[in-house]
Amino acid sequence: MGITPSDQSQQGTSRMRIRPASNGDWPQIWPIYAQIVMAGETYAYPEPPVFEVARSLWMEEPPGQTVVAVEDDVVLGSAKMGPNRPGRGAHVATASFMVDPAYHGRGIGRALGEYVIQWAHDAGYHSMQFNAVVETNTAAVHLWQSLGFEILTTVPEAFNHPRYGLVGLHVMFQRLAGKAE
Amino acid sequence: MGITPSDQSQQGTSRMRIRPASNGDWPQIWPIYAQIVMAGETYAYPEPPVFEVARSLWMEEPPGQTVVAVEDDVVLGSAKMGPNRPGRGAHVATASFMVDPAYHGRGIGRALGEYVIQWAHDAGYHSMQFNAVVETNTAAVHLWQSLGFEILTTVPEAFNHPRYGLVGLHVMFQRLAGKAE
Repeated sequence: MGITPSDQSQQGTSRMRIRPASNGDWPQIWPIYAQIVMAGETYAYPEPPVFEVARSLWMEEPPGQTVVAVEDDVVLGSAKMGPNRPGRGAHVATASFMVDPAYHGRGIGRALGEYVIQWAHDAGYHSMQFNAVVETNTAAVHLWQSLGFEILTTVPEAFNHPRYGLVGLHVMFQRLAGKAE
Repeated sequence: MGITPSDQSQQGTSRMRIRPASNGDWPQIWPIYAQIVMAGETYAYPEPPVFEVARSLWMEEPPGQTVVAVEDDVVLGSAKMGPNRPGRGAHVATASFMVDPAYHGRGIGRALGEYVIQWAHDAGYHSMQFNAVVETNTAAVHLWQSLGFEILTTVPEAFNHPRYGLVGLHVMFQRLAGKAE
């Protein structure tokens, strides 16, 4: 799949744009983060969520980056991106995504995904890996597949889902090096 | 594969034993850690290694644990173990291992591996996952396979090896729940 720059004005909501997050955005990201972590269906993050712990976890330092999808001054979602490992694994990127459940189905996740892939490509990353996509989160799995990711494996029973019990975690991967701009 | 308690007196060197590490052990672990990270063949850890950064990375807090393999007062190797993820992934254990290259071939890695599997089993972990085993580190790969791990997938070109270039990282896995004591 070739990577094409996303026309952000055509993604998500008509006035949505994606921009780097500042510390001042965290108070608006936090309720989205807390809601998603407490729902417990998509992320293996520390529970219960704690404001300061979550901030340091979500707000990336360079060379990573955290962005927000905003409409006017309202944060609709956020993504963080950066190297998956330090040192000799730092040429592989990773990313995480959270969209306000009130705004699901409006293409915000897709717009954030396209942004992140373009960012990693432009930053010279060789590939991108998602380490733990909950297999029952089929909307996310299908979105990442449509953006060029493949499922490398599914770690069995690695996620304790509040409704389904122990379910698998997909390792998803996409090569970026050598793809067209 | 059933899990049997390792008879540590029969493993590694004749007088070797494995015990929990204290902060006072770090000055002896550090040169092993630094040598292995600088060799660059087996771990995607921050480079160059820095004493304090490495200490906080290697010396686990509860519920994790760091151990040393010692002969008399000499540290021959070390392992760290704990949950692979927080929250809803905390029932899966992970571990990392370092053996002084001067003592390779004496069964110290195997003794540490057996210790860690038993620890995770006793602590009630459901399974154990290694996230990033360098595929060219065949001694380690074969050791983990002999201790019951399987390769779930190999993330392509995810490790920048100083001699072989970009090589794969194995995700290795072993179920523990339901195995005999």
